[in-house]
Formats: sequence, structure tokens, C-alpha cells
Amino acid sequence: MSSLTTPTHITNMKIVNTISEMQKLSDELRKTKRIGFVPTMGYLHEGHMSLIRKAKELGDITVASIFVNPIQFGPQEDLAKYPRDFKRDAALLKKEKTDIIFHPFTEDMYSHDFSTYVEVERLEDFLCGKTRAGHFVGVATVVTKLFNIVKPHFAVFGQKDFQQLVIIEKMVRDLNMDIEIIGHPTVREHDGLAMSSRNTYLSKSERDKALLINRSLKKAERLFLEGERRTATLKKEVEGVLRQKEGINIEYIEICDSHTFEDLDTIKNRAVLAIACRIGKTRLIDNTILTEA
Amino acid sequence: MSSLTTPTHITNMKIVNTISEMQKLSDELRKTKRIGFVPTMGYLHEGHMSLIRKAKELGDITVASIFVNPIQFGPQEDLAKYPRDFKRDAALLKKEKTDIIFHPFTEDMYSHDFSTYVEVERLEDFLCGKTRAGHFVGVATVVTKLFNIVKPHFAVFGQKDFQQLVIIEKMVRDLNMDIEIIGHPTVREHDGLAMSSRNTYLSKSERDKALLINRSLKKAERLFLEGERRTATLKKEVEGVLRQKEGINIEYIEICDSHTFEDLDTIKNRAVLAIACRIGKTRLIDNTILTEA
Repeated sequence: MSSLTTPTHITNMKIVNTISEMQKLSDELRKTKRIGFVPTMGYLHEGHMSLIRKAKELGDITVASIFVNPIQFGPQEDLAKYPRDFKRDAALLKKEKTDIIFHPFTEDMYSHDFSTYVEVERLEDFLCGKTRAGHFVGVATVVTKLFNIVKPHFAVFGQKDFQQLVIIEKMVRDLNMDIEIIGHPTVREHDGLAMSSRNTYLSKSERDKALLINRSLKKAERLFLEGERRTATLKKEVEGVLRQKEGINIEYIEICDSHTFEDLDTIKNRAVLAIACRIGKTRLIDNTILTEA
Repeated sequence: MSSLTTPTHITNMKIVNTISEMQKLSDELRKTKRIGFVPTMGYLHEGHMSLIRKAKELGDITVASIFVNPIQFGPQEDLAKYPRDFKRDAALLKKEKTDIIFHPFTEDMYSHDFSTYVEVERLEDFLCGKTRAGHFVGVATVVTKLFNIVKPHFAVFGQKDFQQLVIIEKMVRDLNMDIEIIGHPTVREHDGLAMSSRNTYLSKSERDKALLINRSLKKAERLFLEGERRTATLKKEVEGVLRQKEGINIEYIEICDSHTFEDLDTIKNRAVLAIACRIGKTRLIDNTILTEA
């Protein structure tokens, strides 16, 4: 194939490392282009790629950030061993014709005297917030920073991190950030396991156990479709599936309002069923929306 | 004077009440103009006017906001009686050729379920933060909101609210807001009293007492120039001046690092001397920078 036919997107993907360069570039681009943004912690998989494709569909310029955000990890969590492979990530993003990768240095993002935090109160107290203290403050803070740096018109987030998505939507609304937040459906492996960078931690037998998570969600969806509205019953059924194999440590099974995360006894119109569990040392989350058709 | 000679600025000052209109307008203006912003709580005085003039000098378009921010007032504070006079404010801003007034409704700025806050940790624990719990969270939060709405290139703040200025500077740096913060010197009445919307609360005899605040700062400045570097001595002298009349309730007299607000025993190069006191029911603050020439 002659070089003349090579799309310019592919040859021109730009990698930006400094905050001020990214801000200048975005300021200039915003004058004529609609900027879509996909923030990631790298170690990309098909789930991320679907977010990139969504952004490309909706905007003129697609920016992906790759930044493992230290302040959203607890002291006992997997920051140090969180998987990283920038070269591989850059190749994947190039293949999808991403226009810009923003890949900042940690010491530029967090100065030694960093002390400003964004907190979405209440929503952070439920679900994952119960066991991951400070996690969502870390997420809201870094997303605010990235939004101020990348200056997108819209940003695409996966629904796998459902609580994160709802918290970001609330933050954007409360703080009047002029950015549209797009939630994008969870992408799954052929066998139903939700895509996650953390899946790489799983041994073969752990991965087999992990399949029960999606299977338990499917069971709840079926029962809901058949008319079951009592959350206690649905949760018991989900737990039953997760207990089919040993070695799944359930952190929570919750069925709650999909906007406020408040507990429900019975489902009226719409609820989120969310699961967090640990298999070996790996923490996995998944969810489904239970809603009248 | 014929209408042909009327500057278009004067006839064209725009008043914007809705958040989305302001955002659209700013997005458009940013393509070709440099936007300067002066956030205020209204009841404008010469101090505000000097901020407007500074903004006009540095930018192409000057936006002033008028919004009495409820979340920066404590439950025992003067929110309800805080002075308001939009017509007068608008006339003053028009005279200075302000381009746009952003004057939002409180219920648009704070929805019933508002719950996202910006906190600049540490800096809020000193000085006014000691007695006004939550005040600076309220300030940082509303300034973040206003920045996201007005989208300025720079914003001008008075140095009279010194702690506020330093906290905003820190917030902008930590959260990578792409906005230049300009501190502007305190404007004083002919007799030295720092301009403040709250001066309007003072009776004649209270106003006389209030003069001692600036006089005490002047005394400290003179002693500093003469070589005094011990903060205990300087504070004692300041207190001596404030005690010359009865009825000044001193909340604090502090001499501290002008960036971190940490207490100093002796001044090395630069410090802020800050005073807060109550005269009758009115709380007044003032400050001066003690620095080697």
C-alpha cells in the first residue's frame, strides 16, 4: 500500500507529556473542533477501545489519557503492581486512530505540597466507597484535573465502574463543568467476564471462578424479567450462584437506586445490582441495571 | 453629546442570568478574545472598581459576577442581611465599561441535592479558617463553579481577602485550572480604612474605632522597617494600638508565612500580618505584607 493512502490520523498520533502543552493544544483545537476524551489508567483492553470508538463517533478529536492515579489507591491496594505497558497501549490507541495521548508524569500531576481535593458527598458512602475510603475523592480530584488539562467537550466512561460514572456525572453537574458525560456499556469477554485491567492478575482457576459473577447477574436479570421485585430475594439468588465455587470472597451484593445509591426493599422502575468480590488477591466488580423494558 | 460618540461598551453591557448562556457566550468569546473575570458578592465599592479596571487593562473582555454565595456563610453569619443592590452595582459596572455581568439565581447555582465540594486542605486551617469553619470550602467551591461557567483566561482578586487569594492560587495550581490569578492591592478610604461591603454596617462611632485597624498595621510596618523582626513584639504593638479604644474585639492578630500561613517567631524575608476583629456586630479584616524592600 502506498504511503499516500495511509490515513493521516495513524501517522500523526501525538503524545503529550506536559500539562501546559496539552492545555495550549486543547485551547487551540477547541476553536474549531469538538474534543472527546477517554481518561484511562492504561493497560488497555477492548473495553477501553470501545470508549475510544464512541468518542471518535461523537467528536472531531479524540484524546486518551494514560495515568495511573496514585491518590485513588488505598495504602493496602495495588498501586505498585498495577499493570503498566505504555508501548502496547500507544500501539492499540494508534490502531484506533486516537489523535492525542496525554501521558503526564506523576510528579507533575501531584506536587510535593498538593492539598486540594474534590469530594462528592453522600454518593461516595455507598457500594465501593464503604471499603475503599478516599477512593472516590481521588477519582473526582484526578478527573477534575484531567478535565482542566484536556478541556474536552465530552468524556466517555465505562458503565463497568458504575459508581464512578454516577459520581462523575454528579460532580460535573454540581460544579458546572461544561462537559457532557457519556456512559458506555460494559464490554465482556466471549464468556461474559467483564473486561478489566485487573483480569490479568487472575490465575486460570481464579478466572473460572470469576465467571460466576456475570452468571449471577444474568440470573438476577432473568428473575427480574419474570417479575421478582424483592431485593432480598434477588440478592439471595445472586449469592447462591457466587457460592457455587469456593474462594469467592463477597465484599457486597447491593441492589439500590441507580442515582442516589440508596438501598431498596423492592424495585419500582429501575435499580442497579452491583457486586464487588475478591478472588485470591484480585478485587473484581460488575453490575447490571434492572429496569422495566 | 451625540450618540455617535457614546462608546459602544457603555450601551452594550450584557447581563447574563443563566449558566448555560454564560458558558456558550464565553466559549464563543474565547476563540478570539482574552477574558478577564472579577467575581464579587455585589454591593460594590471602589475596591471592586479597581479590580475591574485591572481586568480591563489586562484583557479584551471583562466579566464581573454578582452572587452572594450562601455556602460560604456560617449559620451564625450575616447571609440574610448581607447588603444587596443590583441596580446600583450594574450602574457602577456600566460606568467602568464592564462588558458582561453574570448574575445567576441561587437555585440555579445550588440544586436541592447539591453535594460536591472543593477543599484546599491545610491553608484553610489558619487565620479566618479557625473561626469560620467551612468558609473556605464554600469559597473554593463557588469559585470553581464560577470559573467553569465564565471560563476566563485570568481572574482578579483583592489582597484584602489575603487568605482567600492564597487559597484560590493554591486551588488553581493543584487542580490545573488554566487561569491566571491576579492579586490586586487593597483599596482604602481617604482615612485608611480598607474598603469592604461590610463597612456599611458600621455606625459613626464604630467607624472611628475601625480606623485603628489600619493604624495598627502602619505601626507594625514602621517597626518592621526600623528592623524589628520578632513577631511577638510586633503583635504586641499591634494589639496596643487596637486597645486604644474600647469595643474592638480582636479575633486574631497573626504574623505568618505568606504562602503556608505557618506561624513565625521571627520574620526572615516576608510575612503577612493579618488582623480580624469585631466592632459591634461587624467583622472586619485587614492585612499587610511585611517584606524587605
